[in-house]
Amino acid sequence: MEKKEFPQNQVDLYQQIKWNGWGDTRKFLHQVKPEGFVALTTPSVSAQPLPSLKGFIKKELSLPTDDPNKPFELEETPSLRIEDIKIHAPKQYPEFVKELKAFFSADQLKDDKLARITHTFGKSIRDLIRVRIGLIKYAPDLIVLPHSHEEVEKLVQLAQKWNVVIIPMGGGSNIVGAIEPVSDDRFTVSIDMRRMNKVLWVDRKEMTACIQVGVMGPHLEEQLNKQGVSLGHDPDSFEFSTLGGWLATCSSGHQSDKYGDIEDMAVSFRTVTPTGTLELRNGARAGAGINYKHIILGSEGTLGIITEAVMKVHAVPQAAEYYGFLFPSFNHAVAALQQIRSSEIIPTMIRIYDPEETALSFASKPSKGPIAEFMSAAVKKYLHYVRSFDFKSVCLSIIGFEGPKKVVDFHRNSVFDILSKNGAFGLGSAPGKTWAEKRYDLPYIRDFLLDHNMWVDVAETTVSYTNLVPLWKEAKQAFQQHFRSQGIPSWICAHISHTYSNGVCLYFIFASKQNSDKDMKQYIEAKGLMTDIILKYGGALSHHHAVGYEHVPWMTRYVSKGWIQVYRKLKETFDPKDICNPRKLIPTIKEENNQ
Amino acid sequence: MEKKEFPQNQVDLYQQIKWNGWGDTRKFLHQVKPEGFVALTTPSVSAQPLPSLKGFIKKELSLPTDDPNKPFELEETPSLRIEDIKIHAPKQYPEFVKELKAFFSADQLKDDKLARITHTFGKSIRDLIRVRIGLIKYAPDLIVLPHSHEEVEKLVQLAQKWNVVIIPMGGGSNIVGAIEPVSDDRFTVSIDMRRMNKVLWVDRKEMTACIQVGVMGPHLEEQLNKQGVSLGHDPDSFEFSTLGGWLATCSSGHQSDKYGDIEDMAVSFRTVTPTGTLELRNGARAGAGINYKHIILGSEGTLGIITEAVMKVHAVPQAAEYYGFLFPSFNHAVAALQQIRSSEIIPTMIRIYDPEETALSFASKPSKGPIAEFMSAAVKKYLHYVRSFDFKSVCLSIIGFEGPKKVVDFHRNSVFDILSKNGAFGLGSAPGKTWAEKRYDLPYIRDFLLDHNMWVDVAETTVSYTNLVPLWKEAKQAFQQHFRSQGIPSWICAHISHTYSNGVCLYFIFASKQNSDKDMKQYIEAKGLMTDIILKYGGALSHHHAVGYEHVPWMTRYVSKGWIQVYRKLKETFDPKDICNPRKLIPTIKEENNQ
Ligand SMILES: Cc1cc2nc3c(=O)[nH]c(=O)nc-3n(C[C@H](O)[C@H](O)[C@H](O)COP(=O)(O)OP(=O)(O)OC[C@H]3O[C@@H](n4cnc5c(N)ncnc54)[C@H](O)[C@@H]3O)c2cc1C
Ligand SMILES: Cc1cc2nc3c(=O)[nH]c(=O)nc-3n(C[C@H](O)[C@H](O)[C@H](O)COP(=O)(O)OP(=O)(O)OC[C@H]3O[C@@H](n4cnc5c(N)ncnc54)[C@H](O)[C@@H]3O)c2cc1C
Repeated sequence: MEKKEFPQNQVDLYQQIKWNGWGDTRKFLHQVKPEGFVALTTPSVSAQPLPSLKGFIKKELSLPTDDPNKPFELEETPSLRIEDIKIHAPKQYPEFVKELKAFFSADQLKDDKLARITHTFGKSIRDLIRVRIGLIKYAPDLIVLPHSHEEVEKLVQLAQKWNVVIIPMGGGSNIVGAIEPVSDDRFTVSIDMRRMNKVLWVDRKEMTACIQVGVMGPHLEEQLNKQGVSLGHDPDSFEFSTLGGWLATCSSGHQSDKYGDIEDMAVSFRTVTPTGTLELRNGARAGAGINYKHIILGSEGTLGIITEAVMKVHAVPQAAEYYGFLFPSFNHAVAALQQIRSSEIIPTMIRIYDPEETALSFASKPSKGPIAEFMSAAVKKYLHYVRSFDFKSVCLSIIGFEGPKKVVDFHRNSVFDILSKNGAFGLGSAPGKTWAEKRYDLPYIRDFLLDHNMWVDVAETTVSYTNLVPLWKEAKQAFQQHFRSQGIPSWICAHISHTYSNGVCLYFIFASKQNSDKDMKQYIEAKGLMTDIILKYGGALSHHHAVGYEHVPWMTRYVSKGWIQVYRKLKETFDPKDICNPRKLIPTIKEENNQ
Repeated sequence: MEKKEFPQNQVDLYQQIKWNGWGDTRKFLHQVKPEGFVALTTPSVSAQPLPSLKGFIKKELSLPTDDPNKPFELEETPSLRIEDIKIHAPKQYPEFVKELKAFFSADQLKDDKLARITHTFGKSIRDLIRVRIGLIKYAPDLIVLPHSHEEVEKLVQLAQKWNVVIIPMGGGSNIVGAIEPVSDDRFTVSIDMRRMNKVLWVDRKEMTACIQVGVMGPHLEEQLNKQGVSLGHDPDSFEFSTLGGWLATCSSGHQSDKYGDIEDMAVSFRTVTPTGTLELRNGARAGAGINYKHIILGSEGTLGIITEAVMKVHAVPQAAEYYGFLFPSFNHAVAALQQIRSSEIIPTMIRIYDPEETALSFASKPSKGPIAEFMSAAVKKYLHYVRSFDFKSVCLSIIGFEGPKKVVDFHRNSVFDILSKNGAFGLGSAPGKTWAEKRYDLPYIRDFLLDHNMWVDVAETTVSYTNLVPLWKEAKQAFQQHFRSQGIPSWICAHISHTYSNGVCLYFIFASKQNSDKDMKQYIEAKGLMTDIILKYGGALSHHHAVGYEHVPWMTRYVSKGWIQVYRKLKETFDPKDICNPRKLIPTIKEENNQ
């Protein structure tokens, strides 16, 4: 195997992504002093004011004991600087590393502090709280950056030979502790897949593309779009997650109602396991035995490393239209949604924000620029409109249509009809445009809140239409009550996204004061509370955030003991030494007995 | 566990289905003497003439040595009568049977000749040839007819305890040798699921239904339709196959382009395995680990017995319209199909017959009755139309639309537009109606051919758009050449059904004189020839006929050695004693080494 050099001038992606927060290092929220308003800085715009955000935070998260006459101050709780973080020295394993070096060039092997920290954590609130205070128990000892399927094969063979733990990493955007080493008994390698980022071929007749799975969202679409096609997978984390991560976690994108979830798009892939490489037959649906692709989809790096995937693609849509609507209440919106589903004319995307998330959505808009101009009209309509509604119950909805112009026209007309029959008030395409342009901004707020003694987390599930509203109500109430009874200001909202004939994804966002919560008591309590309620209503343990380490305690209850045992056998088959991302996805027998 | 009695007056389904042929004992083709034309008798119509069929057979399957001036006679090669069939006595296993009798009433246990013969064979040509001449190597020793999930659990526990082979049977309609015992080293029970035939509940909000999987197609739809819903799964074998069989074989119905294949409809099911019952979570799509339902789908009774399933259903469609079209050639039809797929407005069904199957289709129509009246107009158009086309290349197509009226209108208009741009000639709805009414008749021809010294078999696959026409051409040529070079008259045709973004199901039907082929040399040669060509073109080993016993020799080549090994581990996990339908689906290690 010939060594391939990485272009000297190229910077690895992990060096361009915040090590202690979300996304692009050049994009963040901050306070502009002395005025004290919150602003967003991006690579192209510096300090764009978000004029309503601070007031919103004050209203929702200030302590009841705060003096309303004193100006509202955000406490500063900055992250440590990377220089100040201490991290255990990498373990040494000269025999293994020597053999590795025969196949990998020096620039493919990293063990500096930045590399190790960025390959320890995902982006869950638990991760961010820990990394910001430098609480790093186990970091990988070495990061390897392969360039090809063959290199991954070599790496896995050596890891198997030398009993080295391997943890595949895509964008590291998971929020379930999926890529973190959970013990230090063995030498641990993080496999950073992001140099494997090429679209290998596009077949316009079959509408499929073969793709190296380390590619991140924007770079993937750029390559596909050049050939007139698109994958159409657009999760909130699109900019900083990879195809491999999507496949390994059963990810879902905004337009899943039209293009499907990632498993619907996946035709076939190559998986390197410690017991050998598994190829899947490329081709359309077959009925000749079980469909093996589903054993790898959702396996979260515990069975092996996916290297290349054949994916269904579609023509870049001729038309893409997104519209905003206001509903008098969440119940009105849910009724409309069900009527749309039974009309069989389903939009590309239906997002419904509950009243609290509607308020957040309006509060986090920028004040100027073209978006703001469009928005101001919508906000005005909103403000006017809600006067005749009950302000507290109004719900924003974003509904999108993509495809050939003719299809979009037909769908839009049919859906608009149902919406207006259900009391929805059209805001036109401005909120839709804003949504499309700003949809990747929201996660940056989390870092800002952490900088100011607050935390925010999310929980999501798939729930039946019958249990949707009851779960929504009970979870919000229980969360509020839990924190309020302790005198801690807290806030919770929810939205519906991803709809199915037999249920929807319901997504909660919740925040509170962090106070002295360095031990993550609040996080642990909120997580337990929300997950228990979700399972009580028959909801999925996750609609798209996967299992990782953080959801393991609920996994047996969720999938049943029988299936966990089946999974253990699969694991033994693929990975008899348990070197692939150990202790993720399912509990150990000991953990299970303790549950 | 309380014993439930089976209603005294009820006749088990296996007693009402031909033991030595396809379908309803009261429905068959036969010659009407002295005129000698072929006619169809059904429970409601006796001896309806199919005036063109005999001429068609003469044209396609008479020997070149036949004197064209002598009247064409069909040789009589009748099946044995059941009285004349010899079958080995059932093995005795008093300890096991004694325990069984504690839980099952006498009428649930059968070992008479009819029961044993009907539970040995599926409906493949290999099965029919053998059963008609009484070539029965291994028949099950006992047939058990459970009434409930709990009874199946009890039965499987006892089988596991006493090391008894269990073979679940639905309709027995498979054509791959899937339910046949393949050795006599152990006591063998066939589990006839057909008394478990109730729809347990329908949830109109989630559009799901919970169903006992032994139910056959018509009875299932009858129960669902009463509640305003439909499963929409309509294989050619609909009348004589069960939901359990569909799930276990990854079946596909006519309207799969709209309603999906069986795996798309299946939400969740209960599976009784020798190591315990596996439940699946009911609910919409989730992304929390691997999707276990896909381990059971397509497992063909080798991992356990599916007892109850939650399935997606849809409203009984407001409109259902089926139309006939003629294309100047197969290439024209394929071009239109691809344009329809890329328009994103996909009909509920697109069937395209090649010229040979088009001719068969017109030749097998009845001469009178309301259908014939509709048809005669179509035939006239056909005859007229082909004058300006090349008669030899014209292709019939049946295209259907189902759903709300509004959707059907939109789809029809868009699709008709593409069809006419591609030179298709509309025959109106008459051929569509005929297709809908007569779609279950075709398999009855096979018995008639066997009665007259001819055989007919089928082969089907999923193939890419790129390889579709080349495979179609090569398979037909190779088949014809193979038989013609031996001086045996033979005939082959094909149609396209079930379309996907990245390929279609291509389905061949082929026939020849049987001559003295009692040793099935012709069958074996044709099977090998067709399967090898299919795999050569990257086709699936089967789109919907599954694997069973007959496809095992190609299975490793098809799914790869690695995945076969994974399957062996799964099998060990679920069924450590190998009591569930042994030697099906994958080769033994010995078989694999011999391949
Ligand atoms: C702000 C934010 C928004 C999000 N929004 C969404 C959303 O809308 N939809 C959604 O689905 N998810 C969302 N997520 C979750 C996350 O982005 C997804 O789980 C995503 O699929 C992870 O991809 P990744 O490349 O970042 O994988 P990583 O986080 O690097 O890894 C995730 C898991 O996949 C495994 N893995 C990665 N690559 C491979 C490979 N090549 N082979 C085998 N295993 C591999 C890892 O070992 C790990 O177990 C969001 C996360 C954040 C922080
Ligand atoms: C004329 C004809 C037309 C056909 N057309 C189609 C078609 O259009 N589409 C299509 O998909 N197929 C078709 N087939 C094939 C066949 O009908 C399907 O494979 C069907 O799904 C078999 O269902 P069944 O109930 O008859 O199962 P069986 O033949 O009884 O069994 C098939 C397999 O499933 C297993 N099985 C059955 N029930 C259970 C259960 N409850 N739990 C676990 N395993 C079980 C059996 O052990 C066996 O391995 C056709 C067959 C014929 C003869």
